[in-house]
Amino acid sequence: MASVRIREAKGGDCGDILRLIRELAEFENLSDQVKISEEALRADGFGENPFYHCLVAEILPASGELLGQGIGSKIIKKVAEVALDKGCSQFRLAVLDWNQRAMDLYKALGAQDLTEAEGWHFFHFEGEAMRKMAGK
Amino acid sequence: MASVRIREAKGGDCGDILRLIRELAEFENLSDQVKISEEALRADGFGENPFYHCLVAEILPASGELLGQGIGSKIIKKVAEVALDKGCSQFRLAVLDWNQRAMDLYKALGAQDLTEAEGWHFFHFEGEAMRKMAGK
Repeated sequence: MASVRIREAKGGDCGDILRLIRELAEFENLSDQVKISEEALRADGFGENPFYHCLVAEILPASGELLGQGIGSKIIKKVAEVALDKGCSQFRLAVLDWNQRAMDLYKALGAQDLTEAEGWHFFHFEGEAMRKMAGK
Repeated sequence: MASVRIREAKGGDCGDILRLIRELAEFENLSDQVKISEEALRADGFGENPFYHCLVAEILPASGELLGQGIGSKIIKKVAEVALDKGCSQFRLAVLDWNQRAMDLYKALGAQDLTEAEGWHFFHFEGEAMRKMAGK
Protein backbone atom coordinates (compact mmCIF):
# COMPACT_ATOMS: atom_id res chain seq x y z
CA MET A 1 0.00 0.00 0.00
CA ALA A 2 1.40 3.38 -0.98
CA SER A 3 2.04 5.95 1.73
CA VAL A 4 0.48 9.32 0.84
CA ARG A 5 1.16 12.71 2.41
CA ILE A 6 -0.84 15.73 1.27
CA ARG A 7 0.65 19.18 1.83
CA GLU A 8 0.39 22.74 0.49
CA ALA A 9 2.40 23.37 -2.67
CA LYS A 10 5.51 25.58 -2.61
CA GLY A 11 6.97 27.70 -5.40
CA GLY A 12 9.64 25.04 -5.91
CA ASP A 13 6.96 22.50 -6.88
CA CYS A 14 6.00 24.40 -10.04
CA GLY A 15 8.18 22.30 -12.33
CA ASP A 16 6.45 19.12 -11.14
CA ILE A 17 3.02 20.79 -11.17
CA LEU A 18 3.50 21.82 -14.81
CA ARG A 19 4.60 18.28 -15.70
CA LEU A 20 1.40 16.90 -14.12
CA ILE A 21 -0.76 19.55 -15.86
CA ARG A 22 0.78 18.39 -19.16
CA GLU A 23 0.18 14.72 -18.36
CA LEU A 24 -3.46 15.44 -17.49
CA ALA A 25 -3.95 17.49 -20.66
CA GLU A 26 -2.48 14.65 -22.70
CA PHE A 27 -4.95 12.22 -21.10
CA GLU A 28 -7.75 14.69 -21.90
CA ASN A 29 -6.59 15.12 -25.52
CA LEU A 30 -6.21 18.84 -24.86
CA SER A 31 -2.42 19.24 -24.90
CA ASP A 32 -2.65 22.23 -27.25
CA GLN A 33 -4.41 24.18 -24.48
CA VAL A 34 -1.44 24.12 -22.09
CA LYS A 35 0.31 27.41 -22.77
CA ILE A 36 1.52 28.32 -19.28
CA SER A 37 5.22 28.32 -18.33
CA GLU A 38 6.78 27.25 -15.02
CA GLU A 39 7.64 30.92 -14.36
CA ALA A 40 4.03 32.06 -14.88
CA LEU A 41 2.75 29.23 -12.63
CA ARG A 42 5.11 30.44 -9.91
CA ALA A 43 4.17 34.10 -10.32
CA ASP A 44 0.41 33.33 -10.38
CA GLY A 45 0.34 31.03 -7.36
CA PHE A 46 3.06 32.27 -5.03
CA GLY A 47 2.97 36.06 -5.19
CA GLU A 48 1.19 38.52 -2.92
CA ASN A 49 -2.36 37.93 -4.22
CA PRO A 50 -2.24 34.36 -5.52
CA PHE A 51 -4.59 33.41 -8.38
CA TYR A 52 -4.74 29.78 -7.21
CA HIS A 53 -3.95 27.51 -4.29
CA CYS A 54 -2.56 24.04 -4.76
CA LEU A 55 -2.19 20.83 -2.77
CA VAL A 56 0.50 18.28 -3.54
CA ALA A 57 0.25 14.55 -2.80
CA GLU A 58 3.64 13.05 -2.03
CA ILE A 59 3.54 9.34 -2.64
CA LEU A 60 5.90 6.62 -1.49
CA PRO A 61 4.82 3.62 -3.53
CA ALA A 62 5.14 0.24 -1.85
CA SER A 63 4.99 -1.36 -5.30
CA GLY A 64 5.10 -0.12 -8.88
CA GLU A 65 1.27 0.14 -8.97
CA LEU A 66 -0.13 3.55 -8.05
CA LEU A 67 -3.66 3.48 -9.43
CA GLY A 68 -6.50 2.35 -7.23
CA GLN A 69 -4.82 3.46 -4.02
CA GLY A 70 -7.45 6.07 -3.29
CA ILE A 71 -5.13 9.02 -3.88
CA GLY A 72 -7.78 10.94 -5.83
CA SER A 73 -10.32 10.65 -3.05
CA LYS A 74 -7.71 11.54 -0.41
CA ILE A 75 -6.95 14.79 -2.25
CA ILE A 76 -10.64 15.64 -2.70
CA LYS A 77 -11.26 15.01 1.00
CA LYS A 78 -8.39 17.33 1.84
CA VAL A 79 -9.86 19.99 -0.46
CA ALA A 80 -13.18 19.64 1.42
CA GLU A 81 -11.36 20.10 4.72
CA VAL A 82 -9.48 23.22 3.53
CA ALA A 83 -12.65 24.65 1.97
CA LEU A 84 -14.64 24.20 5.20
CA ASP A 85 -11.80 25.77 7.22
CA LYS A 86 -11.89 28.81 4.91
CA GLY A 87 -15.67 29.16 5.23
CA CYS A 88 -16.63 27.92 1.75
CA SER A 89 -20.16 26.56 1.36
CA GLN A 90 -19.33 24.49 -1.73
CA PHE A 91 -16.61 23.70 -4.22
CA ARG A 92 -16.71 22.85 -7.89
CA LEU A 93 -14.87 20.58 -10.28
CA ALA A 94 -14.86 20.51 -14.07
CA VAL A 95 -14.84 17.09 -15.71
CA LEU A 96 -15.03 15.88 -19.32
CA ASP A 97 -18.18 13.88 -20.10
CA TRP A 98 -16.21 10.85 -21.34
CA ASN A 99 -14.11 10.62 -18.15
CA GLN A 100 -16.39 8.06 -16.52
CA ARG A 101 -13.82 7.05 -13.91
CA ALA A 102 -13.56 10.61 -12.56
CA MET A 103 -17.33 11.17 -12.67
CA ASP A 104 -17.97 7.91 -10.82
CA LEU A 105 -15.48 8.89 -8.12
CA TYR A 106 -16.96 12.38 -7.64
CA LYS A 107 -20.50 11.00 -7.47
CA ALA A 108 -19.45 8.29 -5.02
CA LEU A 109 -18.05 11.04 -2.78
CA GLY A 110 -21.35 12.94 -2.90
CA ALA A 111 -20.90 15.39 -5.79
CA GLN A 112 -23.75 16.47 -8.03
CA ASP A 113 -23.42 16.95 -11.81
CA LEU A 114 -24.87 20.45 -12.24
CA THR A 115 -24.66 20.30 -16.03
CA GLU A 116 -26.82 17.17 -16.05
CA ALA A 117 -29.12 18.19 -13.18
CA GLU A 118 -29.72 21.85 -13.96
CA GLY A 119 -28.29 22.47 -17.42
CA TRP A 120 -25.27 24.63 -16.54
CA HIS A 121 -22.84 25.19 -19.41
CA PHE A 122 -19.27 26.51 -19.20
CA PHE A 123 -18.61 29.46 -21.49
CA HIS A 124 -15.18 30.96 -21.83
CA PHE A 125 -13.55 33.96 -23.45
CA GLU A 126 -9.96 33.56 -24.56
CA GLY A 127 -7.22 36.07 -25.22
CA GLU A 128 -8.22 37.22 -28.70
CA ALA A 129 -11.91 37.70 -27.81
CA MET A 130 -10.87 39.47 -24.59
CA ARG A 131 -8.53 41.86 -26.40
CA LYS A 132 -11.16 42.60 -29.03
CA MET A 133 -13.76 43.39 -26.34
CA ALA A 134 -11.34 45.54 -24.34
CA GLY A 135 -10.19 47.34 -27.52
CA LYS A 136 -6.55 46.33 -26.95
CA MET B 1 -30.62 56.07 -24.03
CA ALA B 2 -29.63 55.15 -20.49
CA SER B 3 -26.35 56.46 -19.13
CA VAL B 4 -24.22 53.65 -17.69
CA ARG B 5 -21.20 53.93 -15.41
CA ILE B 6 -19.31 50.77 -14.41
CA ARG B 7 -17.22 50.86 -11.23
CA GLU B 8 -15.73 48.53 -8.63
CA ALA B 9 -18.19 47.46 -5.93
CA LYS B 10 -17.80 48.71 -2.35
CA GLY B 11 -18.86 47.02 0.90
CA GLY B 12 -21.86 49.35 1.06
CA ASP B 13 -23.21 47.88 -2.20
CA CYS B 14 -23.78 44.44 -0.65
CA GLY B 15 -27.47 45.04 0.08
CA ASP B 16 -28.11 45.88 -3.58
CA ILE B 17 -25.84 43.06 -4.78
CA LEU B 18 -27.81 40.53 -2.71
CA ARG B 19 -31.08 41.90 -4.09
CA LEU B 20 -29.77 41.41 -7.65
CA ILE B 21 -28.49 37.90 -6.82
CA ARG B 22 -32.03 37.06 -5.60
CA GLU B 23 -33.64 38.55 -8.72
CA LEU B 24 -31.30 36.54 -10.95
CA ALA B 25 -31.96 33.34 -8.99
CA GLU B 26 -35.70 33.92 -9.31
CA PHE B 27 -35.32 34.29 -13.09
CA GLU B 28 -33.27 31.06 -13.10
CA ASN B 29 -35.87 29.22 -10.98
CA LEU B 30 -33.13 28.58 -8.39
CA SER B 31 -34.23 30.84 -5.54
CA ASP B 32 -33.81 28.03 -3.00
CA GLN B 33 -30.06 28.07 -3.69
CA VAL B 34 -29.52 31.61 -2.40
CA LYS B 35 -28.46 31.10 1.20
CA ILE B 36 -25.93 33.91 1.63
CA SER B 37 -26.60 36.94 3.85
CA GLU B 38 -25.61 40.55 3.25
CA GLU B 39 -23.07 40.25 6.10
CA ALA B 40 -21.43 37.16 4.56
CA LEU B 41 -21.29 38.87 1.15
CA ARG B 42 -19.48 41.79 2.76
CA ALA B 43 -17.07 39.59 4.72
CA ASP B 44 -16.28 37.41 1.67
CA GLY B 45 -15.70 40.23 -0.79
CA PHE B 46 -14.29 43.10 1.20
CA GLY B 47 -11.90 41.59 3.75
CA GLU B 48 -8.16 41.10 3.53
CA ASN B 49 -8.17 38.15 1.11
CA PRO B 50 -11.40 38.63 -0.85
CA PHE B 51 -13.13 35.51 -2.24
CA TYR B 52 -14.61 37.50 -5.12
CA HIS B 53 -14.39 40.80 -6.97
CA CYS B 54 -17.43 42.62 -8.24
CA LEU B 55 -18.28 45.36 -10.73
CA VAL B 56 -21.39 47.49 -10.39
CA ALA B 57 -23.23 49.17 -13.27
CA GLU B 58 -24.85 52.42 -12.20
CA ILE B 59 -27.64 53.27 -14.56
CA LEU B 60 -29.44 56.54 -15.10
CA PRO B 61 -32.40 55.55 -17.25
CA ALA B 62 -33.58 58.09 -19.79
CA SER B 63 -36.89 56.21 -19.96
CA GLY B 64 -38.53 53.40 -18.00
CA GLU B 65 -37.12 50.80 -20.39
CA LEU B 66 -33.76 49.30 -19.35
CA LEU B 67 -33.51 46.13 -21.43
CA GLY B 68 -31.75 46.23 -24.77
CA GLN B 69 -29.43 49.07 -23.81
CA GLY B 70 -26.31 46.93 -24.08
CA ILE B 71 -25.61 46.97 -20.35
CA GLY B 72 -24.75 43.25 -20.28
CA SER B 73 -22.19 43.58 -23.01
CA LYS B 74 -20.73 46.73 -21.42
CA ILE B 75 -20.15 44.81 -18.17
CA ILE B 76 -18.60 41.81 -19.97
CA LYS B 77 -16.28 44.15 -21.89
CA LYS B 78 -15.23 45.73 -18.61
CA VAL B 79 -14.55 42.27 -17.15
CA ALA B 80 -12.35 41.53 -20.17
CA GLU B 81 -10.44 44.76 -19.59
CA VAL B 82 -9.90 44.06 -15.87
CA ALA B 83 -8.92 40.44 -16.59
CA LEU B 84 -6.32 41.50 -19.18
CA ASP B 85 -4.92 44.12 -16.78
CA LYS B 86 -4.51 41.43 -14.12
CA GLY B 87 -2.74 39.07 -16.54
CA CYS B 88 -5.57 36.55 -17.02
CA SER B 89 -5.45 34.49 -20.23
CA GLN B 90 -9.19 33.69 -20.17
CA PHE B 91 -12.34 34.06 -18.13
CA ARG B 92 -15.35 31.82 -17.72
CA LEU B 93 -19.09 32.21 -17.31
CA ALA B 94 -21.71 29.69 -16.28
CA VAL B 95 -25.05 29.82 -18.09
CA LEU B 96 -28.21 27.69 -17.99
CA ASP B 97 -28.91 25.86 -21.25
CA TRP B 98 -32.41 27.38 -21.60
CA ASN B 99 -31.11 30.96 -21.25
CA GLN B 100 -30.86 31.52 -24.99
CA ARG B 101 -30.65 35.30 -24.69
CA ALA B 102 -27.53 35.09 -22.50
CA MET B 103 -25.91 32.39 -24.65
CA ASP B 104 -26.54 34.39 -27.82
CA LEU B 105 -24.95 37.48 -26.24
CA TYR B 106 -21.85 35.58 -25.02
CA LYS B 107 -21.37 33.92 -28.43
CA ALA B 108 -21.84 37.23 -30.24
CA LEU B 109 -19.04 38.65 -28.07
CA GLY B 110 -16.72 35.76 -28.99
CA ALA B 111 -17.25 33.22 -26.19
CA GLN B 112 -17.07 29.48 -26.76
CA ASP B 113 -19.45 26.97 -25.13
CA LEU B 114 -16.96 24.50 -23.61
CA THR B 115 -19.71 22.13 -22.48
CA GLU B 116 -20.99 21.84 -26.04
CA ALA B 117 -17.59 21.94 -27.77
CA GLU B 118 -15.53 19.72 -25.46
CA GLY B 119 -17.98 18.07 -23.07
CA TRP B 120 -17.06 19.84 -19.82
CA HIS B 121 -19.50 19.27 -16.95
CA PHE B 122 -19.78 21.22 -13.71
CA PHE B 123 -19.65 19.05 -10.60
CA HIS B 124 -20.13 20.49 -7.16
CA PHE B 125 -19.85 19.35 -3.57
CA GLU B 126 -22.13 21.07 -1.08
CA GLY B 127 -21.91 21.48 2.69
CA GLU B 128 -23.17 18.08 3.77
CA ALA B 129 -20.98 16.14 1.34
CA MET B 130 -18.01 18.34 2.31
CA ARG B 131 -18.52 17.78 6.03
CA LYS B 132 -18.88 14.02 5.50
CA MET B 133 -15.64 13.90 3.49
CA ALA B 134 -13.77 16.02 6.01
CA GLY B 135 -15.16 13.98 8.91
CA LYS B 136 -16.75 17.07 10.51
